Order: sequence, then structure tokens, then C-alpha cells
Amino acid sequence: MRAVDIIARKRDGIALTAEEIDFFVQRFATDEIPDYQVAAWLMAVVLRGMDYRETIDLTMAMVRSGEQLDLHDVVGFVADKHSTGGVGDKTTMVVAPLVAAAGVAVGKLSGRGLGFTGGTLDKLESIPGFRTNLTTEQFRRQLGSIGLVVSGQSAQLAPADGKLYALRDVTATVDSLPLIASSIMSKKIAAGADGIVLDVKVGRGAFMETEQAAVDLASLMVQIGEHGTGRRVCAVISDMDQPLGHAVGNTLELQESLDTLRGGGPTDFRQHCLAVSAQMLLLAGKAANETDAGQRLSQLLDSGRALDKFREWIGAQDGDLACVDDLRRLPAARFIEPVPASRSGYIAALDAREVGLAAMLLGGGRARKEDQIDHAVGVVLHAKIGDRVEQGQPLLTIHANEEAKLAEARQRLVAAYEWSHERVSPPPLIHRIIG
Amino acid sequence: MRAVDIIARKRDGIALTAEEIDFFVQRFATDEIPDYQVAAWLMAVVLRGMDYRETIDLTMAMVRSGEQLDLHDVVGFVADKHSTGGVGDKTTMVVAPLVAAAGVAVGKLSGRGLGFTGGTLDKLESIPGFRTNLTTEQFRRQLGSIGLVVSGQSAQLAPADGKLYALRDVTATVDSLPLIASSIMSKKIAAGADGIVLDVKVGRGAFMETEQAAVDLASLMVQIGEHGTGRRVCAVISDMDQPLGHAVGNTLELQESLDTLRGGGPTDFRQHCLAVSAQMLLLAGKAANETDAGQRLSQLLDSGRALDKFREWIGAQDGDLACVDDLRRLPAARFIEPVPASRSGYIAALDAREVGLAAMLLGGGRARKEDQIDHAVGVVLHAKIGDRVEQGQPLLTIHANEEAKLAEARQRLVAAYEWSHERVSPPPLIHRIIG
Repeated sequence: MRAVDIIARKRDGIALTAEEIDFFVQRFATDEIPDYQVAAWLMAVVLRGMDYRETIDLTMAMVRSGEQLDLHDVVGFVADKHSTGGVGDKTTMVVAPLVAAAGVAVGKLSGRGLGFTGGTLDKLESIPGFRTNLTTEQFRRQLGSIGLVVSGQSAQLAPADGKLYALRDVTATVDSLPLIASSIMSKKIAAGADGIVLDVKVGRGAFMETEQAAVDLASLMVQIGEHGTGRRVCAVISDMDQPLGHAVGNTLELQESLDTLRGGGPTDFRQHCLAVSAQMLLLAGKAANETDAGQRLSQLLDSGRALDKFREWIGAQDGDLACVDDLRRLPAARFIEPVPASRSGYIAALDAREVGLAAMLLGGGRARKEDQIDHAVGVVLHAKIGDRVEQGQPLLTIHANEEAKLAEARQRLVAAYEWSHERVSPPPLIHRIIG
Repeated sequence: MRAVDIIARKRDGIALTAEEIDFFVQRFATDEIPDYQVAAWLMAVVLRGMDYRETIDLTMAMVRSGEQLDLHDVVGFVADKHSTGGVGDKTTMVVAPLVAAAGVAVGKLSGRGLGFTGGTLDKLESIPGFRTNLTTEQFRRQLGSIGLVVSGQSAQLAPADGKLYALRDVTATVDSLPLIASSIMSKKIAAGADGIVLDVKVGRGAFMETEQAAVDLASLMVQIGEHGTGRRVCAVISDMDQPLGHAVGNTLELQESLDTLRGGGPTDFRQHCLAVSAQMLLLAGKAANETDAGQRLSQLLDSGRALDKFREWIGAQDGDLACVDDLRRLPAARFIEPVPASRSGYIAALDAREVGLAAMLLGGGRARKEDQIDHAVGVVLHAKIGDRVEQGQPLLTIHANEEAKLAEARQRLVAAYEWSHERVSPPPLIHRIIG
């Protein structure tokens, strides 16, 4: 078997065998197949596609390229969730302790933000001392002791995926359903989750801009998980035309998550967390139906039980609990500027991508992996789609550390809003559930 | 301008601008764009294509990546020919001295054989002492002094093409009309030829297996040469279903070329050489029409004037002229085995590719660039398509240096023939002329 022949077959639109895919992936992982051959193959995959069977084979080949966690000696069932990335998406910070409080163990390897979407690790690192680089042994121990752990990606899990992703990023081969789906699923499967809820975002602030693309990706990932490995998988297609919740920016999102864990927080964000958490309970067999799950989960938020779990979690990973109890101890931005509405009317649109780019511009996100981020900066949106706003009322508040960036972000944020004289319905939060 | 954006545009089927193509090619030539980005781009070009304008821009960008010869201080008009490669294709050894004998200077940079097709340099190197690594200065001086020079490719001419070709070979991106056409034409244009005759082979033993593919490639190359640079270019589409002439193998082909230069040689090969040479004379404005050119060229062969030019040429490049005069001094194979026909009938087909592969198997060709070749081995085909052969008559003669290889080659060669009870017409030698 030769790499060049496998490339030629995919170039000609032929479905590759499981053996060919495995040969290619394992030898790439060990540097026996050079980057330039993989790059040509990736472009052939982007333009010729892969069928379901090939995509499952690719996923499992990437899983086999490294360590595979089996957590069953620690807990009977491990739940995980994955978001395809959005603006203001702080869901994990609420869902993980909430589901753990409901008695379902949550073990999650998470990522950092890149581009206009944020990453959970960055948000958690707003808490001084919080450790995200746990060893596998620490990960297992904490999962066993408190039923909740979130750590950074391990280079030992699906290393072929890590190498492939780095190459895709610089060869314009990111945009391919089989490559995106197998990348996400290989990491989730290798990390040992039994039940996986995929939060697939759709809209202006998401990677998938159309409903059809989001549904296709979600269906493919559910197929990979269930047919490829027998894991329990479902996907929630959720809206990302406008940001989720009000806060965008690392510390600001941590604060909003804490509000939500205290039973408050923005309505859309609370609803979204309840929907994702309910699916996790259902996969674990810990709820009869969505209504049952929703009621129990609401109670866990309102009673402070979810917040207790959050504190236990942060403490276990060495985060400063004093900050959790007194948010004024968290890093704050130098300039906090409210921006009033320049007119009256209904909010017709609020471009999530533009808001994400403005937060990145303020220093809250990364253009490149090696960039440092500023945890304190960001924006709080006081009005969202469907809201009625009167001229002079606060529209948003910018948190910045540099005046020049503040001015640029203000312009961008104000322009992200579209107005209407007529009443506008807010977009549906959950588009559909698959699997 | 970023390489990844240029890759993305081609991935999406967008025509690249001249600036984008030049940016990509020059930075690849200087190693500023890494192989993996170029490999992804090449696959996108293979699957998305390039239009005429892009192909011309690519060609000229590769020309600009290195040195460009201007030979006009040495001669007024330089003619060149290029074959897309075939089996038994020894045309240059006859055409170059023949055209030079007719008063048109021929300056040619030639290549080595790879796979089942042979290379002119390998055939010329059958002559002891013959030098193929001339410096640019030696090339110019010899062109001026005797009006005829053939040397190896210089790494200084179109270096981007050399790098690109090496990468295409290992990334399954060879098979693309714009890439093939621009690769050939960039080297020819950089080498300073004013008139270029392209000998585009079509059939089983050629890179282009169908008439349409050959015509498309030829038309594209003529367009590049004429619209891109104002050079005079034409293409001869010639048959390669069966080998050209009788001999396949380096020394054997040299001998057949000498026979032809003495006014003999196989009819098809002589006709082919006359057709290509006539086009070179026409491009140079040294003949009124094909008939006029054909008559003068035939006379140059029959009178020995072309052979005189050949001797002058070989001498100028330090080849052993004693070998030219006495072919028994050339390297000979240990085993020379005639294979008789096992039946009587007409030859219906003679698979050029299989013959080429058999010659390669005997040691006369290279599977990889770094392989050594055996000049003495090969095959002489006594019967070709349309010939009537009686059982027991010699069908072919194998020249080998190893008995095991001889047996394997014999089997392959005998199987390359197809027979018919009915009379069969030989295929047309020249399919058409373009430009």
C-alpha cells in the first residue's frame, strides 16, 4: 500500500477502504507519511467527500492513533457535551455542575477559543489558580471523587486528529463535513464518554451558517458515535444568529454563569443550559422524559445545589473560591462604558459574528493560537432580538483596557444591531434535536 | 496576500489573478510557502481546473522563477522540439541533426526517462564520452559554432517547475492539463527557443491515452506559447498505440537512429522524423510548405548530410565517434534471443505500454529517478500492426543481461501482440497538426 495511490483514489472520487484509511492515518501520526501528501489528500477529501462508512473509519483510525480512556473502573456512566463554538457560549460552566448535581458524572476535555468564538478553558481560567492541565490520573481521580472534571485536551488522545487539524488550518481544508465530524468525534470517543450531547450552533456567529449544514453535521456525528462505537449520542441544533445570553468575554461570561447557577441569569441562556442538560440526563437514563428532566434541573439551579457542585469542582481544580463568592475579586477592565441607544425601536438583528469580532478586538480572543488573551475585557448586551428599546436607554456596556480599542469596538457593536419600527419575534432558541 | 487564501479561492473554483499566481509560485520557489500548502493547492488545481489565462500566468510565473536564456546574440532563430514521451521515441537523435543540416539552429534542453517511456539523454549517453551536462556558456558557444546542441535540463531554468513537478509526482497531482502544459512550456520558453514543435503522443504507450486529451493538451500548449509569449509553436499529434520504429532500449534506439540518418531505418520512424522536422522548418520560415520541406529533408537523409551533422554534434560534445562509425563498439547485451511467432496471421495490436514496461524490466528504464539504467538491453520488434507474419518467423529479438529477466520480458512481449486472421490496416502515424 502506498500513500500516493490512496491520494489518487480519493482524487478520483473512489471510496477508500478501512485498511487504506487506517494505513494513511497511523502513518501520518508517526510522521511516516509527510505533511505534503496529507495536504493533497485533505484537499481531495474536501472536494470529493467521504461517505458515512469512510467517515466512521476515519474517526476510529484517529481514535486508534493514541491513548483511549476507559473510565468504567471509576464511574458507571460518563456524560460529555461538545459545542461547535459560538459567541457568548458559556454553557459548559453551567451544564457540567448542573448535570453532575443531578447524579450523572461529567468528564470533559475542553478546548481554547480561536477566532471570534470563545473557549471554555479560557473562561474558567478567569478564576485565579484554576488548573486546566490535569494528568490522566488526576482526571480519573477527580471524576471518581466528585463526579465532575473539565481539563484541557491531552496530546495523547487522538494525536492524528491534532496533527490533521493543524494542517487543515493552513491548507484551506477546514471546511468539510466528514473532516469536521470525525475530528470532533474522535476526541470525544477517545476521552471515554458513554453519552455525548453535541451542541451544534447555527447562524451568523457559528461555523455552520445554515440550518441544513448544521443538521448534516449533527446527523453525521450522531451516526459516527452510535454506529461506529455504540456510544449514546444526540445533537441539539441551537441558534447562534445572535450571541447566547448577554455577556461576551471571559470574566463577564463567568459572572453570567454564576448568576445562572444562582437561579438567575438571562432567560435564553438558562433555557439553553436546561435543554442541553436534559438531553444528558436522558442519555444517562436518569430521567423519564424532557419535562421530568427539566423540572428536576430547574430545581437544582433554583435551590443552589448546582452552585454547590460548581464550588466543589472549582475547589478540586485549585481555583480561588473567594472569587466565586465575591465577584469583585475577579480581574476587572479599566474602562467600563455604557453605550445608550441612539434611537427607539425593536431590535431586529444582532450579528453574533460582529459581536465576537469586537470582543476579540478588545483583546478577549485569539487571532492565532499563540496569542495571549485579556480575561477582563468584553461586552454585555442589554438588548437582544425582539426587545423594545427607547432612545437613551443602555444598549450595551463595553469593558476595555485600551481607549483606542474601546472606540473601535463601540462602532462595530453599534453597527451589529439592526432596528425595526415593527414588533419583532425573537428567533427560536433550539431549532431541533437529532438522535 | 496569504497562501491559505489563494488555496481557498482555487478550492472554491475561483479563477486566480496573475498576481496571486505569481505570489504563490515565486514564494514556493524560494521556500517561503511550504510544500504542504503547495500540495493542497495542486490538488485543488487538479480537481477545479484552471482557465487559459490562469495557465498562461502560471507558465510565465514559472519562467520568471529562474534564469531566462536569450540566444539571439548567437543565432537569429532557435528551433526546439519536445515530445510528451513514448516508447521507442528516438526522434530527437534524427530530427536535431536533420533540421540543423537544413540550416535551422537547434538548441534543446532534454530530459531523462522515467517509467515506461525513455529519455533522449539516456539514449545519447549510450555513446561513450558524450557529455550532457553543459554549462550555459558551453550551450551558447556550441549553438553558435555548429548550430546544434542538446544538453540536460538546467536547474537554473524554471526552478519552480522542477520543485512543483517533484511534489506532483508524490501527491497524485500529475494528471492535470494546465499543470502538464505549463510545466512543459515554462521550460521551453525559459530555454530561449523561438520556434517550438510539440510532439504530442496519443495511445496506450503515451501519457495521453485518448485523441481528445492529446488535442486538448496540444491546443493549450500552442495557446500558451503563442498568446503568452509570442513564440511560434505548433503541435504534431502522433500515434503511440504501438512503439515508434522497431527498437526499444537505449543503444538499440541509437543504432536505429543511425540507420535512419544513413537513409534507411523503419518507414514509420523515418516518416515521423520528416513530419516533425518539416514543421520546424516551417516555423523558422525556411520552407514554403510541407511538400517542399519534406523533399529537402529526405534528400538530407539520403545524401548523408544529416549524418555528417550528427557526427559533428557528437564530436562537439566529446562523444566517441569511433562508436558511431562502428556500432559493434557500443555496449552489447549478453543474451540476444530471437523469439519466433507461435502462429501465423496479421498483427492487430502491439501494446506500446507493455513493450515499454518490458524494456524497463530488462533494466533499460527507471522506476525511480535515482535508478541506474542498463544501456545495452531492450527489444527489437520485427513485426508491427498490419504486418503479416508466418509461424516460426522472427517476431521480436530480446537483448538482456540477466536470464530471469529475459524470461519474464519474453512472456510480457509475446502477450503484447494481438493477432487477427483478417487483414489489418496500420494506425495513422500523424493524427493531426495543430497551430
